[in-house]
Amino acid sequence: PVIDLNSDLGEGYGRWRLGDDEAMLAVVTSANVACGFHAGDPATMRRTVRAAVERGVAVGAQVSYPDLAGFGRRAMDVPSEELRADVVYQLGALRGIAVAEGGEVRYVKPHGALYHAAAGDERVAVDVAAAVRAVDPSLVLLGQPGSAALAAAESLGLATAAEAFADRAYTPEGRLVPRGEPGAVLDDPGEVAARMLRLVREGLVTATDGTDVAVRAHSICVHGDTPDAVRMAAEVRAVLTRAGVRVRAFVPGS
Amino acid sequence: PVIDLNSDLGEGYGRWRLGDDEAMLAVVTSANVACGFHAGDPATMRRTVRAAVERGVAVGAQVSYPDLAGFGRRAMDVPSEELRADVVYQLGALRGIAVAEGGEVRYVKPHGALYHAAAGDERVAVDVAAAVRAVDPSLVLLGQPGSAALAAAESLGLATAAEAFADRAYTPEGRLVPRGEPGAVLDDPGEVAARMLRLVREGLVTATDGTDVAVRAHSICVHGDTPDAVRMAAEVRAVLTRAGVRVRAFVPGS
Amino acid sequence: PVIDLNSDLGEGYGRWRLGDDEAMLAVVTSANVACGFHAGDPATMRRTVRAAVERGVAVGAQVSYPDLAGFGRRAMDVPSEELRADVVYQLGALRGIAVAEGGEVRYVKPHGALYHAAAGDERVAVDVAAAVRAVDPSLVLLGQPGSAALAAAESLGLATAAEAFADRAYTPEGRLVPRGEPGAVLDDPGEVAARMLRLVREGLVTATDGTDVAVRAHSICVHGDTPDAVRMAAEVRAVLTRAGVRVRAFVPGS
Amino acid sequence: PVIDLNSDLGEGYGRWRLGDDEAMLAVVTSANVACGFHAGDPATMRRTVRAAVERGVAVGAQVSYPDLAGFGRRAMDVPSEELRADVVYQLGALRGIAVAEGGEVRYVKPHGALYHAAAGDERVAVDVAAAVRAVDPSLVLLGQPGSAALAAAESLGLATAAEAFADRAYTPEGRLVPRGEPGAVLDDPGEVAARMLRLVREGLVTATDGTDVAVRAHSICVHGDTPDAVRMAAEVRAVLTRAGVRVRAFVPGS
Repeated sequence: PVIDLNSDLGEGYGRWRLGDDEAMLAVVTSANVACGFHAGDPATMRRTVRAAVERGVAVGAQVSYPDLAGFGRRAMDVPSEELRADVVYQLGALRGIAVAEGGEVRYVKPHGALYHAAAGDERVAVDVAAAVRAVDPSLVLLGQPGSAALAAAESLGLATAAEAFADRAYTPEGRLVPRGEPGAVLDDPGEVAARMLRLVREGLVTATDGTDVAVRAHSICVHGDTPDAVRMAAEVRAVLTRAGVRVRAFVPGS
Repeated sequence: PVIDLNSDLGEGYGRWRLGDDEAMLAVVTSANVACGFHAGDPATMRRTVRAAVERGVAVGAQVSYPDLAGFGRRAMDVPSEELRADVVYQLGALRGIAVAEGGEVRYVKPHGALYHAAAGDERVAVDVAAAVRAVDPSLVLLGQPGSAALAAAESLGLATAAEAFADRAYTPEGRLVPRGEPGAVLDDPGEVAARMLRLVREGLVTATDGTDVAVRAHSICVHGDTPDAVRMAAEVRAVLTRAGVRVRAFVPGS
Repeated sequence: PVIDLNSDLGEGYGRWRLGDDEAMLAVVTSANVACGFHAGDPATMRRTVRAAVERGVAVGAQVSYPDLAGFGRRAMDVPSEELRADVVYQLGALRGIAVAEGGEVRYVKPHGALYHAAAGDERVAVDVAAAVRAVDPSLVLLGQPGSAALAAAESLGLATAAEAFADRAYTPEGRLVPRGEPGAVLDDPGEVAARMLRLVREGLVTATDGTDVAVRAHSICVHGDTPDAVRMAAEVRAVLTRAGVRVRAFVPGS
Repeated sequence: PVIDLNSDLGEGYGRWRLGDDEAMLAVVTSANVACGFHAGDPATMRRTVRAAVERGVAVGAQVSYPDLAGFGRRAMDVPSEELRADVVYQLGALRGIAVAEGGEVRYVKPHGALYHAAAGDERVAVDVAAAVRAVDPSLVLLGQPGSAALAAAESLGLATAAEAFADRAYTPEGRLVPRGEPGAVLDDPGEVAARMLRLVREGLVTATDGTDVAVRAHSICVHGDTPDAVRMAAEVRAVLTRAGVRVRAFVPGS
């Protein structure tokens, strides 16, 4: 079996850093690089892409609403013309940085509030997919299985990849338990790693009611913004590797 | 004889507009498109590029220091790593927008304080040229003849183009009379057009002391930020065209 | 009878201007000054406040979501802690500028998407009112009659002022016809001025169905972002003045 | 003897934090609070001011050039009208937040590149002092002894306070050894604390050549952006307190 591990990287800004990018680049096979709208000034982006290219980690564009103060987590009602241009702009900027570092952008994963909007709002999903296609139709859209984002991307002819979340509980219907609800976020690295191993092998996750639920995933999203998160991500990779799972990027040709 | 006319375009931001881009696109053959750091939100950039592509006007990246409030006109001491990344980012963003509109970015012209710094400061000039080359070595750098910017670009193997300023007085040494000095800026469209015709035909401009000075130029920079400026630009083009000068973009293949 | 005329002023940013502030300061008695989040860099704010103070026009803070690219018109879901701090920050900044110019901020009018959110969403309305009160409980909140904004302000002990819109059609229920619907925006200066005179004298406006509807207003909002808008505003003031209406600021002591 | 300890606080932005503000508030008596131009979104500012007010730490405005990406450390050539308005704006914003938290702003300390410009460039120094006085002439300007900043403030009638730097080496002339030169930054908490104790008691510091140099200081600047820095700051305070030095804010009435 094969799986990708993705994580948000380059989410500092100027003087500020977030998480341990170096450590995470040793864990993941796909790096969602912030593109300046929620995080990631150009110099940070360039350092992040350079490190990813050096390690052979696939580079993706983590596009966002323009919201530095809110880290892109605040819902915004951005009209289609503006949203599409924002996505094209960020994606283009990261592509410029990637080519300057001898790499290339292979996929797109919306960030924060835009991720959620694209998952549930067809208009936003189509805007994102259309903007991605307008820049490069060979880009892959990474998102939640069953989301409007993946449906829109597929309808526009883009390849897609589905992701699971290592540290999140799932409902019996295969949805994420909303943050804020009890038990929504898992914090035991061993348990999390075992769940992900089962996901990769059997396509199943134990839901909150104890039943098995099918979860389709080409990639597992792990976090690196705290030392505990890095440890959990490393544990997931270690358990998968020991069990013979091949961890590699989901983009074609990896 | 052949000459290019270039102008700054897309220098609005969101709700704000600056100048009459539509009118200027009928005058110029090269459009210096603002890339978001001194002006030009993504939607404005996209509209500007679309209009330029539709009219066959060459698209260039007008890269700047990050300074919306100062319109990129305030000198900043940006370290090389940051400056290079800023140029790569802006250039990449515009390339993304250009490809989404079926066009391409052909040249780079630094804006405002960065233009002046790159003209006189070798460190800055090399940073800009290196960043441009890192993204696309086929890009042309547009700048003042004799500037550090063109020298650095040439030393790094980039093609360059020299520009003259239609509405500016020249010293006997072929330099621009600094803004603020009396007579630095010319405002008679007929006189300006006649000067530019002579520049194209003979490579000469009448300096402030009445002598002739040689000015090398592949392009003439005209402005469009006021109705008077648009009229002057149109007059320059009309006079050149009537005199049999071919007005076309300076980039290769135009 | 007495009425106030209010308008958005200082809505440029750096190099960009919007509307004819000088002309509008001769028309209005209350200036809603942009505070930097949707428009209004500090130097523009200071020039605007100085001109308002010189002419005896009351100064209000036009607070907004942080959204330069969208001119504060895009709905954002800003959590209470952040929204309150944003309002306090903008209000404080304008108060600093006002005291530096020998004036003072007398009232607050939310802008754009925040105006609409505060009108209809009680949580947002309470956030805005609480933030205003925390800075200065003698400030007046200016908004739509019947809005959540005014209700929240009153429940927190703030004085309020209701405004009518000169160029907008009203439903028989006294609500504004939404922009985008036919007839929502009126463009005949004579008709608009006559409507406003009747509003001031009788408290009535002719609704879209021809019936009379009662509209309570301490102030009339006029626009100045186009030459036509300035002309309409001037006509409203001229008609009111000729009819013996006293046009003065709604804030206490004017 | 009496001395103040000051430190930069609230230098996060949105999702990003910098240093351990809680720990530093137990060490310092004056908090230089970032005002949004180099760091410090409104919610961070408000949390920082609230914590400072709760602990009785004096609040100062850390005003900066507008430069989030460069953390205000990049020299900028900002014309006087704009610079003054920028200072007034930031100072006003922090005053708004302070009043909302039941506190008040007592002093101003320019940040980063603006600190350096105000120390050496009279034009900038006068701009800063004039802006501060325009908002509140009872504010104290905190800066380096002998700097243009303090001279300008005094000439405009503002009170001033001089600061020493705990972790920096001094030349025999009483100047700071420039960062980057060997030995410019001291890292032994015991040595640093002993130096500061001598400074307070005798007004003397051992210079790089072993001689004693007189350094006038009402306040000692300590850092809190790393765990080591926090430990050093705490050691300075502990040594001073054990030696009977009273550590309290330099502003009047403390």
